[in-house]
Amino acid sequence: MAVPESRRSIAGCTRRRVLEGGAAVALLAGGARAQPDGPRELKRLVAANRILANEGVVDAFGHVSVRDPRNAERFWLSRSRSSALVELDDLMEFALDGAAVDARGRTPYGERMIHAAVYAARADVHSVVHNHAYGVLPFTIADEPLRPVVHTASVIGAVVPVWDIRTRFGGTDMLVRSIEQGRDFAATLANNTCALIRGHGAVVVGASIERAVLTAIYLQVNAGVLLQALQLGGEPEALSAEEIARSSETQFSPLALDRSWEYFCQRAGVDPG
Amino acid sequence: MAVPESRRSIAGCTRRRVLEGGAAVALLAGGARAQPDGPRELKRLVAANRILANEGVVDAFGHVSVRDPRNAERFWLSRSRSSALVELDDLMEFALDGAAVDARGRTPYGERMIHAAVYAARADVHSVVHNHAYGVLPFTIADEPLRPVVHTASVIGAVVPVWDIRTRFGGTDMLVRSIEQGRDFAATLANNTCALIRGHGAVVVGASIERAVLTAIYLQVNAGVLLQALQLGGEPEALSAEEIARSSETQFSPLALDRSWEYFCQRAGVDPG
Amino acid sequence: MAVPESRRSIAGCTRRRVLEGGAAVALLAGGARAQPDGPRELKRLVAANRILANEGVVDAFGHVSVRDPRNAERFWLSRSRSSALVELDDLMEFALDGAAVDARGRTPYGERMIHAAVYAARADVHSVVHNHAYGVLPFTIADEPLRPVVHTASVIGAVVPVWDIRTRFGGTDMLVRSIEQGRDFAATLANNTCALIRGHGAVVVGASIERAVLTAIYLQVNAGVLLQALQLGGEPEALSAEEIARSSETQFSPLALDRSWEYFCQRAGVDPG
Amino acid sequence: MAVPESRRSIAGCTRRRVLEGGAAVALLAGGARAQPDGPRELKRLVAANRILANEGVVDAFGHVSVRDPRNAERFWLSRSRSSALVELDDLMEFALDGAAVDARGRTPYGERMIHAAVYAARADVHSVVHNHAYGVLPFTIADEPLRPVVHTASVIGAVVPVWDIRTRFGGTDMLVRSIEQGRDFAATLANNTCALIRGHGAVVVGASIERAVLTAIYLQVNAGVLLQALQLGGEPEALSAEEIARSSETQFSPLALDRSWEYFCQRAGVDPG
Repeated sequence: MAVPESRRSIAGCTRRRVLEGGAAVALLAGGARAQPDGPRELKRLVAANRILANEGVVDAFGHVSVRDPRNAERFWLSRSRSSALVELDDLMEFALDGAAVDARGRTPYGERMIHAAVYAARADVHSVVHNHAYGVLPFTIADEPLRPVVHTASVIGAVVPVWDIRTRFGGTDMLVRSIEQGRDFAATLANNTCALIRGHGAVVVGASIERAVLTAIYLQVNAGVLLQALQLGGEPEALSAEEIARSSETQFSPLALDRSWEYFCQRAGVDPG
Repeated sequence: MAVPESRRSIAGCTRRRVLEGGAAVALLAGGARAQPDGPRELKRLVAANRILANEGVVDAFGHVSVRDPRNAERFWLSRSRSSALVELDDLMEFALDGAAVDARGRTPYGERMIHAAVYAARADVHSVVHNHAYGVLPFTIADEPLRPVVHTASVIGAVVPVWDIRTRFGGTDMLVRSIEQGRDFAATLANNTCALIRGHGAVVVGASIERAVLTAIYLQVNAGVLLQALQLGGEPEALSAEEIARSSETQFSPLALDRSWEYFCQRAGVDPG
Repeated sequence: MAVPESRRSIAGCTRRRVLEGGAAVALLAGGARAQPDGPRELKRLVAANRILANEGVVDAFGHVSVRDPRNAERFWLSRSRSSALVELDDLMEFALDGAAVDARGRTPYGERMIHAAVYAARADVHSVVHNHAYGVLPFTIADEPLRPVVHTASVIGAVVPVWDIRTRFGGTDMLVRSIEQGRDFAATLANNTCALIRGHGAVVVGASIERAVLTAIYLQVNAGVLLQALQLGGEPEALSAEEIARSSETQFSPLALDRSWEYFCQRAGVDPG
Repeated sequence: MAVPESRRSIAGCTRRRVLEGGAAVALLAGGARAQPDGPRELKRLVAANRILANEGVVDAFGHVSVRDPRNAERFWLSRSRSSALVELDDLMEFALDGAAVDARGRTPYGERMIHAAVYAARADVHSVVHNHAYGVLPFTIADEPLRPVVHTASVIGAVVPVWDIRTRFGGTDMLVRSIEQGRDFAATLANNTCALIRGHGAVVVGASIERAVLTAIYLQVNAGVLLQALQLGGEPEALSAEEIARSSETQFSPLALDRSWEYFCQRAGVDPG
């Protein structure tokens, strides 16, 4: 599937606009709650959208959010728009029940409840990615567990549970639409970093935007490597629990995280911030 | 197969010409039947051609048509030209027996009978895509049925029949050349949204251009996911009938359809219209 | 394998130079044997080089030649240079024993004997492609025969034999270096259109440059489709002998050949000529 | 996995800077040890970084080094930065125990010990590539040995051993951090050209930058071909020992090496030097 590649073209076309979208910046800067790191976090959220699109982790669908650095009861997420096209003015603020704080006529994503419920359940989470990455989808409908087999993917964690909306909610349109559905998903996610959604996609959480984005990218890389290793026959050698813990720490150290953030930003044509 | 990607380059090179091709617009605008939405529908048809090429759904071969919004007995289709290169002036009008209304020396596609026969048989169909998508082709020659396993592909419908021209027409050049062959194909398509043609490709129909294009794209995505899920072993978990119905409705709601149309247009470098 | 895509960038960068290279044109135009269609055939040969590179049929290695339209005992082939970079001035003339007619210090490909021997053995052949297409290579080292399963690939012919240099020449560097090796290969090719070379690549012949190029492209497409169909289980449904014959005729008709040549030229950024 | 492709965009964006980075050139030219071929070798090292990124052999991680042509006890390697972004000023000099000669505040790669230990153990090695090529990774965790099956990959050598850091060092973060770990790896590499690292990547060595880069590229191509050949069933036909030896010699002859270096440089948008 060669889709990821051409996503870049959009990022390329619109890269000049990333640092504009002055209205959203002004809104924050002039608002009562405006604090130094707010605008920078929102710029990073725009960059995260572009990176995920450019790396083929999201397509027309999928989204990424960040918890408000000044108010833990709020999070930011784009209006309903493909990640490849998201700009600062598209970002909307939400409460932890999924209600928009100041919609200004903008239509939110139908699945913002995933983000709301995860932020409510996990104080350690500051960024959430939801995607339908094509390389990950096969593992959402098969019995083979998705587990880390390469060190760059140690950050996905030892266990990647699969949540099926049908189990508790029966026949639906498969979207996580209500806060109850979001909470049910969050219960399956538990303390893990990634969870799959049957026939639908994945959710990846992180203590920062950079971590969530890096994890989402290598979740897909790892899925492809695992699939091919299985085709070679036998049981692929897995990372040990100790390797997962130690390698995760290294992958999230500034040495590795800064290098990869710079790299993915330049590929997507956005400013590392 | 990495072919899809470079199709983009053509769309990029010629994007400026998409909104020109003044002759075709003038023809419509000045014609006796000219109505407000005619030209807009033809621009969308050009966009559909470019999108399908850019996403790797068509290559040198394959085509997309739209029923005339002002005359249900007519449909529009490009002259014989690769979708990546189609412009407004390439669009030709056809009757439901496949005859060109005003050819002006242009050569039509050899397989326009697919479109003619489907429009004649299905009043609910307003757009038809015919393609040889590489990811779909394996399912045209294998026993494994192509069925939706991810929610974005619910729109392909529960059943995707396979039509073999050899069954009734024996040894041919495998193209659907006569209206009789087209009608035989349409009988196999029946009330489904997609049908495969053995050793040849697929046909996707929709109530609008946007729907047909989106369905054709996710038919290929779903084929790739299903193939990989099968490689993981066991029977991939399928969407239930209720999930297919409800998810289709959601995928064709403005929330999802407008977002993805904007996205695919921008990737292809064409105006969403 | 995503190699095909970036080959385009080179073609894009150098496309302006395709119609220059005045020296080679002048050489022909001013030469004693110069005739109207000579220069045009050489321009098409440059285009063929770029197309094959752009479509991922050749990489750093691989080449394409054309029989001299004015002298059946001669053929044209680039000097030793990657197809993506070939320009008019790189083209060299060879006799049917592989000797360069006017080398002007240019180094020929080590494997020009493939071309020489095939032109000597097959009066119906006017163009020869030799490549290491990644999607075709698996079939050169496996027992599964490569045969046409989709109609666009009917042109590869019913039988694609595999030649192993080791059988008659023992341990070599695997290149077809001598005219004897070339003749041995040509004997295995016999009257077929394509032949594989074990652990090395493929040779595709055609009655024209356009035919050879189109066949080489769809040989690789067909290999990918067949591999995936085999993964779906069961015996993939094959084209019948009659379908191969009739579909080949259609694929090589002006309707299909002109359309695809225009398409592949535009993708590669070269003039269709 | 279509990641390789978009790496090109970065190379494209920054290509103008490749020949700048005047400080590093000046450093060498003005230094006491400055000799004619030093700067040229460093330019080639920058080109190697860009090529490996452009061909999808490295991603955010991975690196390539060269032994100092004027001092066999030293080698050059970029500071900790993704290969796609490396410029002349990023290059740092190291001793064979991995200590930086003149860090100037720059942070070195965490795994420079791989390079240090290999240069110390192998006087014949003048360039070292370390990567996590996605197509190679499956072979690091499966029992199927990676061996050359196509002649362009003969250069990887008959035996590609797999090193597991866990065997001697237990639960680690999987990086080769100490000179002891580097030496243990080098002992497994022995006199081979390539070695895999379980759940991590590969190391490729060469008598020159060009050789190491070419070998790293075709190691990945060969991995993909072998994986697909295995899917076709049966035991893929392997190159014989004699074929590996003779073909390697040919692939490293100027005829093949210069052609492919020119090709890969142009694809990456860098000067062949």
